[in-house]
Amino acid sequence: MTAARQRGPRDPSAAFRWPIRVYWEDTDAAGIVFYANYLKFFERARSEWLRSLGFGQEALRTTAGFGFVVTDTSLRYVEPARLDDVLEITVEVDHVGPASVSVSQQASRAGRLLAEGAIRVGCIDLGTFRPRRIPEDILARIGRRPMPTTPQEASRR
Amino acid sequence: MTAARQRGPRDPSAAFRWPIRVYWEDTDAAGIVFYANYLKFFERARSEWLRSLGFGQEALRTTAGFGFVVTDTSLRYVEPARLDDVLEITVEVDHVGPASVSVSQQASRAGRLLAEGAIRVGCIDLGTFRPRRIPEDILARIGRRPMPTTPQEASRR
Amino acid sequence: MTAARQRGPRDPSAAFRWPIRVYWEDTDAAGIVFYANYLKFFERARSEWLRSLGFGQEALRTTAGFGFVVTDTSLRYVEPARLDDVLEITVEVDHVGPASVSVSQQASRAGRLLAEGAIRVGCIDLGTFRPRRIPEDILARIGRRPMPTTPQEASRR
Amino acid sequence: MTAARQRGPRDPSAAFRWPIRVYWEDTDAAGIVFYANYLKFFERARSEWLRSLGFGQEALRTTAGFGFVVTDTSLRYVEPARLDDVLEITVEVDHVGPASVSVSQQASRAGRLLAEGAIRVGCIDLGTFRPRRIPEDILARIGRRPMPTTPQEASRR
Repeated sequence: MTAARQRGPRDPSAAFRWPIRVYWEDTDAAGIVFYANYLKFFERARSEWLRSLGFGQEALRTTAGFGFVVTDTSLRYVEPARLDDVLEITVEVDHVGPASVSVSQQASRAGRLLAEGAIRVGCIDLGTFRPRRIPEDILARIGRRPMPTTPQEASRR
Repeated sequence: MTAARQRGPRDPSAAFRWPIRVYWEDTDAAGIVFYANYLKFFERARSEWLRSLGFGQEALRTTAGFGFVVTDTSLRYVEPARLDDVLEITVEVDHVGPASVSVSQQASRAGRLLAEGAIRVGCIDLGTFRPRRIPEDILARIGRRPMPTTPQEASRR
Repeated sequence: MTAARQRGPRDPSAAFRWPIRVYWEDTDAAGIVFYANYLKFFERARSEWLRSLGFGQEALRTTAGFGFVVTDTSLRYVEPARLDDVLEITVEVDHVGPASVSVSQQASRAGRLLAEGAIRVGCIDLGTFRPRRIPEDILARIGRRPMPTTPQEASRR
Repeated sequence: MTAARQRGPRDPSAAFRWPIRVYWEDTDAAGIVFYANYLKFFERARSEWLRSLGFGQEALRTTAGFGFVVTDTSLRYVEPARLDDVLEITVEVDHVGPASVSVSQQASRAGRLLAEGAIRVGCIDLGTFRPRRIPEDILARIGRRPMPTTPQEASRR
């Protein structure tokens, strides 16, 4: 099942957008962007999205002792990107739980979809690596009330 | 839906296995293996699996002009790996189509599951980047007859 | 001998400058930017410098069949960079030969030097991987006349 | 000045050797190994060399609180490596100081030199990131007595 089919209808104007330039380091011997690097591109866009909400992850890590770790990734690669391309990466919130956030992300070039996926990040204590609740101020700015913990959510932790 | 739930029952003894050592390059500031790097580990194991079947990808690329590109990845991260760990990466064939192969892969340390996922690779002409049939000798050695093209398979190309 | 000592006096205002944000992918388990990644940062800045002069490397590669490959790198690491840091990367031309360009580059954060180095790139035919002369229009825009080939230059090819 | 010229005569039989296979992740759009990745290959070989002497860096990091950081790298790229190549990476000790070790390293394929360089690593306290003396048992196994600190050595710290 592809990431696209896991998603419901959405409002494109609600997406956070971040441009990424493709450099030599991103390409492989097939002449295209190495597929694993889309996870890096998506991560950069999520970091900038959090920053746009007022949160720096290094500050969270070193002063508050917690952070977000990726727990699930599902990507579909549609068309290749190449050296010097400028990609637009989007971030859209799909679901916010008490200790996790699920987002959908797309990479496109000039409006044409190249790759897309769903990423789930969990909030953890970086000392113990155990899940912890996302602080209220972050939840509030992510912009959705935490949903009640579902059985599925509970079973995944 | 996680990768684990997409899989049916399997025979663990049928898996190809490849050891991977964790180096500084693989880690991030949380002190653990950066999640995107599991895609690299899984790729290395698939390359060694193909090599064990007698196929070198550089030879396929430069002499036959075709190759395998990743079209879908779905990973679930269970526990972190750390610097100096030795991971065992497995490759198990889930499905072979006329122009694609789907495998399940796991990363474990001393028998403990750290990450797992499903990867689908498509066979393409590296000049045009269009899908092409996997040559018969490769299909034969992958060890499963090509399944008839299903509607879903067709709709994804 | 460190890179810094290889350089003569220079005019800081002449340097091309490019900002780079540090993401998770750039860090390692020591909590700092992995040293090999400065070569990526320096490469990005050189790519943007060439772009600012009107040259896209993918266009050179696919239409003109040549490109620049790195032949020598010498870096000194002074202070660590961390997640979320914004680095300024500079590019300054040290020497232009008929088939190579040598530059000095620095990475700094808020005016404080973190790393610096000297990079030499050679112009090659991407089909044969043999050195070739840099086209006149590129030489002209790099802004220095090609120096006569020195004995040392000749001995390195 | 290239790395090769910085080195004195040496006994090739004294070198530590480590094989590295080239995978897709290591290549770039020129069809060859991306030059920055030789720093990763060299690092892997140094890690295995330390391991062969009985030292695991994760254990040093988490139990003793110190580690080795790279302070200087100087590499020369001679010939390209390609997907599926098996490279041999060497490590030879050039100099051991009280808080640093300098090594020469080469990457070759079937006896043919592809890249070589000199790497200097410093021993630091990972809490403060300040230099500290290398413990005696490690110095002893590296196999050379610490040289007296030279003026140049002192001026670089």
